[in-house]
Amino acid sequence: MIFASDNWAGASPKVAEALRDCCAGTRSAYGGDDDTKRLEGILSDLFEREVAFFAVTTGTAANALALAAFTPRWGAVLSHAQAHIQVDECGAPEFFTGAKLIGLPGARAKIAPPTLVDALAELPAGVVHHVQPSIVSITNATELGTVYRPDEIRAIADVAHGRGLALHMDGARFSNALVRIGCTPADLTWKAGVDVLSFGATKNGCLMAEGVVLFDLSKKDALGYLRKRGAQLLSKHRIATAQYEAWLDGGHWLALASHANAMADRLATGIAASSGARIAWTPEANEVFAFITPETDARLKAAGAHYYEWSTVGLAPEDGPRDGEIMIRLIASFATDPADVDRFVSLLG
Amino acid sequence: MIFASDNWAGASPKVAEALRDCCAGTRSAYGGDDDTKRLEGILSDLFEREVAFFAVTTGTAANALALAAFTPRWGAVLSHAQAHIQVDECGAPEFFTGAKLIGLPGARAKIAPPTLVDALAELPAGVVHHVQPSIVSITNATELGTVYRPDEIRAIADVAHGRGLALHMDGARFSNALVRIGCTPADLTWKAGVDVLSFGATKNGCLMAEGVVLFDLSKKDALGYLRKRGAQLLSKHRIATAQYEAWLDGGHWLALASHANAMADRLATGIAASSGARIAWTPEANEVFAFITPETDARLKAAGAHYYEWSTVGLAPEDGPRDGEIMIRLIASFATDPADVDRFVSLLG
Amino acid sequence: MIFASDNWAGASPKVAEALRDCCAGTRSAYGGDDDTKRLEGILSDLFEREVAFFAVTTGTAANALALAAFTPRWGAVLSHAQAHIQVDECGAPEFFTGAKLIGLPGARAKIAPPTLVDALAELPAGVVHHVQPSIVSITNATELGTVYRPDEIRAIADVAHGRGLALHMDGARFSNALVRIGCTPADLTWKAGVDVLSFGATKNGCLMAEGVVLFDLSKKDALGYLRKRGAQLLSKHRIATAQYEAWLDGGHWLALASHANAMADRLATGIAASSGARIAWTPEANEVFAFITPETDARLKAAGAHYYEWSTVGLAPEDGPRDGEIMIRLIASFATDPADVDRFVSLLG
Amino acid sequence: MIFASDNWAGASPKVAEALRDCCAGTRSAYGGDDDTKRLEGILSDLFEREVAFFAVTTGTAANALALAAFTPRWGAVLSHAQAHIQVDECGAPEFFTGAKLIGLPGARAKIAPPTLVDALAELPAGVVHHVQPSIVSITNATELGTVYRPDEIRAIADVAHGRGLALHMDGARFSNALVRIGCTPADLTWKAGVDVLSFGATKNGCLMAEGVVLFDLSKKDALGYLRKRGAQLLSKHRIATAQYEAWLDGGHWLALASHANAMADRLATGIAASSGARIAWTPEANEVFAFITPETDARLKAAGAHYYEWSTVGLAPEDGPRDGEIMIRLIASFATDPADVDRFVSLLG
Repeated sequence: MIFASDNWAGASPKVAEALRDCCAGTRSAYGGDDDTKRLEGILSDLFEREVAFFAVTTGTAANALALAAFTPRWGAVLSHAQAHIQVDECGAPEFFTGAKLIGLPGARAKIAPPTLVDALAELPAGVVHHVQPSIVSITNATELGTVYRPDEIRAIADVAHGRGLALHMDGARFSNALVRIGCTPADLTWKAGVDVLSFGATKNGCLMAEGVVLFDLSKKDALGYLRKRGAQLLSKHRIATAQYEAWLDGGHWLALASHANAMADRLATGIAASSGARIAWTPEANEVFAFITPETDARLKAAGAHYYEWSTVGLAPEDGPRDGEIMIRLIASFATDPADVDRFVSLLG
Repeated sequence: MIFASDNWAGASPKVAEALRDCCAGTRSAYGGDDDTKRLEGILSDLFEREVAFFAVTTGTAANALALAAFTPRWGAVLSHAQAHIQVDECGAPEFFTGAKLIGLPGARAKIAPPTLVDALAELPAGVVHHVQPSIVSITNATELGTVYRPDEIRAIADVAHGRGLALHMDGARFSNALVRIGCTPADLTWKAGVDVLSFGATKNGCLMAEGVVLFDLSKKDALGYLRKRGAQLLSKHRIATAQYEAWLDGGHWLALASHANAMADRLATGIAASSGARIAWTPEANEVFAFITPETDARLKAAGAHYYEWSTVGLAPEDGPRDGEIMIRLIASFATDPADVDRFVSLLG
Repeated sequence: MIFASDNWAGASPKVAEALRDCCAGTRSAYGGDDDTKRLEGILSDLFEREVAFFAVTTGTAANALALAAFTPRWGAVLSHAQAHIQVDECGAPEFFTGAKLIGLPGARAKIAPPTLVDALAELPAGVVHHVQPSIVSITNATELGTVYRPDEIRAIADVAHGRGLALHMDGARFSNALVRIGCTPADLTWKAGVDVLSFGATKNGCLMAEGVVLFDLSKKDALGYLRKRGAQLLSKHRIATAQYEAWLDGGHWLALASHANAMADRLATGIAASSGARIAWTPEANEVFAFITPETDARLKAAGAHYYEWSTVGLAPEDGPRDGEIMIRLIASFATDPADVDRFVSLLG
Repeated sequence: MIFASDNWAGASPKVAEALRDCCAGTRSAYGGDDDTKRLEGILSDLFEREVAFFAVTTGTAANALALAAFTPRWGAVLSHAQAHIQVDECGAPEFFTGAKLIGLPGARAKIAPPTLVDALAELPAGVVHHVQPSIVSITNATELGTVYRPDEIRAIADVAHGRGLALHMDGARFSNALVRIGCTPADLTWKAGVDVLSFGATKNGCLMAEGVVLFDLSKKDALGYLRKRGAQLLSKHRIATAQYEAWLDGGHWLALASHANAMADRLATGIAASSGARIAWTPEANEVFAFITPETDARLKAAGAHYYEWSTVGLAPEDGPRDGEIMIRLIASFATDPADVDRFVSLLG
């Protein structure tokens, strides 16, 4: 009963085979090979426009480099205060950008456009005393398992672009958001105003496949240099391209994400029906947040369940814990076994 | 006839199988798994003492992080002027350390201890106007295919340690140096005074396996934070550990390096015997440097040979080109086919 | 009627004479002169213990360097969200530390110890995903003209030190806080747990005299290198030492601050008694915050009054504006003329 | 007999009076005052074109910020290996630019255009493995007291601009070079291809007056933010403007520099005529380099002479020391007394 993280899963058999198979033969190093070029074509087709693609090795690298490409040294990155870039990357975004990160409040890890408007008003253009906002970053699906729809993204993009800022999407769980909404990758990104996407595949069926999809091609050269200077240019680049290609092939990635989401729904339904726990809010991707008592917590762990207790800082009062409850995060992955879900639920009483 | 780089090769079949096999099952993320602990034990056995190991994803990352762990913001890294960290990492070492890199001259890419003594004398301790030397970095095997022996390393270490500096070894081709010398990994590193090693496996049979072997355990915590902040902490850490474990198992890595070195020797012998080319110096690892005429260059390329012309800047006059010659670099790998070597040599006339 | 900033004033005649007089004669450069040594002695006497002193040229530099000396690259600086280091230094603290700044809420620009406890709980020690808190920064007097008393500082210091963090005080208006409280400089700093102080003199009677007073002498070497690398080591160091010495001589600095505070009190009393404005809270240093209507604002400006409208973001509801009011900041300085204060008040109606 | 540095002198009486006089009265802070605007006009007149001017507080700051404005994070700054930015700024240029500094050889601290051509050839455009050259920095007068003439600058500018690089001049001793050559400030800067100048006044009669003169106005906004983020924006900006204005007024700066140069010439003539010392090369500014024996060194010091022994690293053989000699640097300033020069010379024997 592993619900600790989608990072605890491995890779799908299809991706695993691709990893092995790509080891044979000779290819130009550092992404100068035909496979890399072909992958860029596949991604351009997928996103229905020309994109530039920069494979990197971690989600943190994808985020930090994407932000750096759009941020001068005196810039500022605005995101939700609970975003991964704010909380879980040990200062990598500050390191790669040299700039300031500003955290915004917002219910269930989402930014509301008026909040962004207010934050920007505090940082007037042209005043040298203040950092100058350069990019907004949203996470989709969010750290709390909620999802931005295209119209919500467009509203944020309009605020950002209106002030000359770019819009970044941290898509560590992009697949999970996408299959939940049921729109196209283009709808969820550049058509809604996204300028650059961290397109994560690791959490959803690859071992290590992260990359930056650049819709604003004016930053292509910058990102190339930043990636190398950031120690993120793979010499045997095939290790990234082979995973991505197998993962995207034939909608494999969407099937994997659909399974993960379905397992999250199964968890949520079971929890909602139980007497020993309650869900915090309806999951929209593959993450379920629930409230349990310390007694239930002890019982679950004794039975071998793995999950993390989660901070309730910043939650709206109506989303928060009641007397004595703790909040836990449960993540389903492409590899989650429905039997594990059912066993977990059965332990809730 | 691919002699462009050992990065053009893939991974050995044994490593390829390990990559595939590690994809199954569930493991703690971010290196908190048993495999990672086991690998650290294997490395401690290999180096005959307790070491800390930090897997990263590129050789540039290994170097930059190793240097950063030993360098204050006002520090200085001293290395040969032609070192990879000076020339081929797009400023990553400056970025990760925040410090200054100082390049030293030296025949065939090796630093002589008196050169180091002189350079340190120009940077007296305690004078705030100057950066303060913090670490010396040597590359073994070097960028020119030469090798430092343990006694040579000890002589450099004594100078460095005498001034309070640490000693780093860029071991992107550590295996090749090791099998050429025929000593133990311990002899070539900490027993000779090395404090931290970039232990590269990618160039010699893995797809992506790089890491920092720390002999000075006082830097362990620092390196852990620096790795994460540097966007180099793999979530599905198994992708690194599985490769390393298969590669080290049963001396596989030594066999791979021995083959590469043998192919370099075969190349050098052939070139020396040819009338159309001459070797620059006797290769000591898997890199061969040779002088050819433009006509020969054209003929080789027309026949499908891949290699790079190489800069002769900084070479001693006796090592340099004669009338009209160009210098080329030929690299053999674990996968080099002797038939390719022989065909290449036959084209030299 | 200049109440825009204490930075709009010049220097006291005594400081002005000292500036002129120090121009004559020859002195060792870069702080190697006897005057600098003597000043360090004066400061050690003033603070009743041995201190190290580093003159710099701006308050931003004093803050950024003080923080950098105590912060590893993966560190975090915690301060009030409205602190100068967060809002008004264009990212200099991030630049000099390479770390993350975390802003805390708190009434009237002061941090309450429980808020700090909660924030630290979100950043557990030893977890590489999170930046590691390294230093807490408080501002005294604060950006909202309030003051921390020694027991309040001690309570914050205890939380910080209990977790291994240092405590920094941004003392851009240290003099104003000190004369208000009526304690000794030692009481307000190291005796209350402060490890490093930005000791500002510019706002209170000098033209440019800023410096870092270091109580934790273990950081002395680091600060020396950081100052030079930060481009803050004055060659003709006398320009700083001469101002400080004249300013500290015979309690001159305390007299200047007392005047500024008295003028702030006179402003506040007048505002409180007026029908056209109300004070936001009782001023504790030389800054007065008041609410006025747009009509009053227009009338004041037409009459030649200079002051800034101030953001009300983060204010407690009871401290905030009522219908249609705007908040303004009025700052008195050592040079403020009581007649200007009275004229300003008379314009309020 | 102080010949240690022009930084050991104070300020001229005229500048001293200006410093005192500027202390009175009220002015907008942070350079928003009329004086600052007026100074920019004076500088535009002086340089015969519109310039932007950014006062800072140290020469290191002027250099580091000027370079940063023209250098992307993956950039490279090329200068002579003995330049102040390479040797004497404790890594500040690396810190402010985030980029790499590359040192070039050259006789008597000057870069020859072919050396620059060769260095650029090693760093081909568009190759992500290498830092990308962004700016060339020359020092005038140089660290060895030599001077670049306008045609020499033009030749370097043509190489730099031909590759898309900017040209920076470190003018810590710009006045001394200017009066030696006898051309206009425009001739020595933008008319010869200089894009940005560190225009130092501290060494030549001010206490602290350094600034960046920007000829390429496209970098104006960037430099404004970089200055504030670099902790170099003075709040009471008058301390810089008042010194510059007095110093430039009526050719005062040129008279000061002429005196310093004349004293250097007097030193050089005396040394050349002595039997106990020899000049290294004819001084072209206010710095004299000479060779003396250890015995003479001891005698001079015993008599109270102050000067520094200087490194001979990188000197051409014909410029270097002969048996047993040491090289010393003697600097004359605006305040040097001819009697001191004569006494020094008389001690040489």
